[in-house]
Amino acid sequence: MEKTNVTINDIHDAEARIDKYIRHTPLLRESQMDKILGCQIYLKPEMLQITGAFKLRGALNKILSIPKDELKKGIITSSSGNHGQACAYAGQMLNIHATVVIPEDAPTVKSRNAKNMGAEVISWDRSYAERWKKVDEEVKEHGYTIVHPFEDFNVMAGQGTIGLEIMKSLPDVETVLVPIGGGGLISGISTAIKETNPKIRVVGVQAAASCAYYASRINGKRTEFESRETLADGITCGKTGTNPYPIIEKYVDEIVVVKEETIKEAVKLIADYAKLIAEPTSSVVIAALLEGNIKVRSDEKVCAVLTSGNWDIDKIGKVFNNEPVKGVL
Amino acid sequence: MEKTNVTINDIHDAEARIDKYIRHTPLLRESQMDKILGCQIYLKPEMLQITGAFKLRGALNKILSIPKDELKKGIITSSSGNHGQACAYAGQMLNIHATVVIPEDAPTVKSRNAKNMGAEVISWDRSYAERWKKVDEEVKEHGYTIVHPFEDFNVMAGQGTIGLEIMKSLPDVETVLVPIGGGGLISGISTAIKETNPKIRVVGVQAAASCAYYASRINGKRTEFESRETLADGITCGKTGTNPYPIIEKYVDEIVVVKEETIKEAVKLIADYAKLIAEPTSSVVIAALLEGNIKVRSDEKVCAVLTSGNWDIDKIGKVFNNEPVKGVL
Repeated sequence: MEKTNVTINDIHDAEARIDKYIRHTPLLRESQMDKILGCQIYLKPEMLQITGAFKLRGALNKILSIPKDELKKGIITSSSGNHGQACAYAGQMLNIHATVVIPEDAPTVKSRNAKNMGAEVISWDRSYAERWKKVDEEVKEHGYTIVHPFEDFNVMAGQGTIGLEIMKSLPDVETVLVPIGGGGLISGISTAIKETNPKIRVVGVQAAASCAYYASRINGKRTEFESRETLADGITCGKTGTNPYPIIEKYVDEIVVVKEETIKEAVKLIADYAKLIAEPTSSVVIAALLEGNIKVRSDEKVCAVLTSGNWDIDKIGKVFNNEPVKGVL
Repeated sequence: MEKTNVTINDIHDAEARIDKYIRHTPLLRESQMDKILGCQIYLKPEMLQITGAFKLRGALNKILSIPKDELKKGIITSSSGNHGQACAYAGQMLNIHATVVIPEDAPTVKSRNAKNMGAEVISWDRSYAERWKKVDEEVKEHGYTIVHPFEDFNVMAGQGTIGLEIMKSLPDVETVLVPIGGGGLISGISTAIKETNPKIRVVGVQAAASCAYYASRINGKRTEFESRETLADGITCGKTGTNPYPIIEKYVDEIVVVKEETIKEAVKLIADYAKLIAEPTSSVVIAALLEGNIKVRSDEKVCAVLTSGNWDIDKIGKVFNNEPVKGVL
């Protein structure tokens, strides 16, 4: 039976289910960054997760919950890349057919990796709606099970394991910063945190260029947002997710937005101090501290979730050298 | 009393002594890189160590072994940067005066970080001999204790803890690859490994542009090497170390060299697949596999020690974009 919600128990179950397949990423105390960011900063570097992003947690929790008869027909998803890679990896590991419908303009590294892991990659129109129409057609033809990157409650539960790990590594964490794109990651993490210790503050961060959750919070109702182009291509968000929206409204204390210029500064800062490749999607949480969008005390223990590092290296190099990456960005 | 050798017992002692101050870096299985490198590759990412390099292990083991009366007069070292940062950090943590004599052309990030951690930074002539003359003068004037980056046996023992951690994470590791500059790191690691399990192969890697240990191995005796410029500025090596040399001849199975071009390729590969900033010094071990200089089986478990990530970000960006970094390199 399809799940219709996510609770702390689901997240504990997810942790047990995926435990042996994923990496428990370290929690890095980066005291050299404190002065610049204005707080005591900790990083949860999910770019060190297998496949270079947190997405494997949610994808695996979902896939391992699919009944065997269904599973052997194969799985399918659509994703700007990181979730697609996670599904490809899971498919390879469990020896099942995985199909990924990927936007035509996604970073090369993401489609390359999905192909290398034996997935069928369908390059399709950039529009979200068009890609999911293609997914439905494929499902009808082949009987695949859909692994949705953020609407699926099992996927959310898998992502929530990050929240459990943070609280385990740092029980007195005070604030946790999480990027919001579709909303699956922060739905899982905020559920894990608020249903364990409601005093911990959870803050979501979006790119100002694409921020339907931010707009919806301001308007007090689900609001579409006409997205502009953003370097944070993994968290474009023109429309809030049906299932994540109420969870985010219930559990996420604040939602803030950041500018493109600051996103680039943050990519550089993370490389310079923490020696990690953060794709821009990932760096928005550090950008928010740089912009002073989140009120923090200098002795406040703040954990920033760095989601991923799957960006083409030449584009990362341009950011390091203060050169434009594409068009006006 | 000054130590005159290093043994597995010293390394176990070092592990207990520095345990609560350092990070136990994870061992990362990077299966996506296997095909390219021709083996089953594991990375020991010491750029995630506090201060961005393995050097804190050795520096702390030495400093915590100095008698209190001596220690309060302060410490001094000379280093191309990473060891200097480690001494600065240790000085700050233990509240003692630390002086670092640093080459004039060292990467900005290294002297900046040492200063930020409260060390006295003396920018001095690039020549190794000149810098150590300056150190001796300072010692005479202030009574500092020298923390030598590779001649000191306590420093070697601290670096050797990396060997213990690798064997603990992967008991059936078959080959361990280690960059060689001064020789302190590989002296510690090879002692840890060979005095635990002599069947594990230890391979040292130098930049072809600066490879006195390689030249000495070929000649069968300590041989000076007229260094050319190399991107691997943390492991320039015109002369073998007095104390490391016999240890390396005893315990290191092979020494190989790599070209500048391949060092750059390796920096990119590590960023692309492992999402880590590896300074060129660090990437020589991956370069050696790329060049096919080390004979490996496709099912061989190989661990590459990535020493550090402290290079100026704009120079890393140039490497990512295939642009020359400086002069002919």
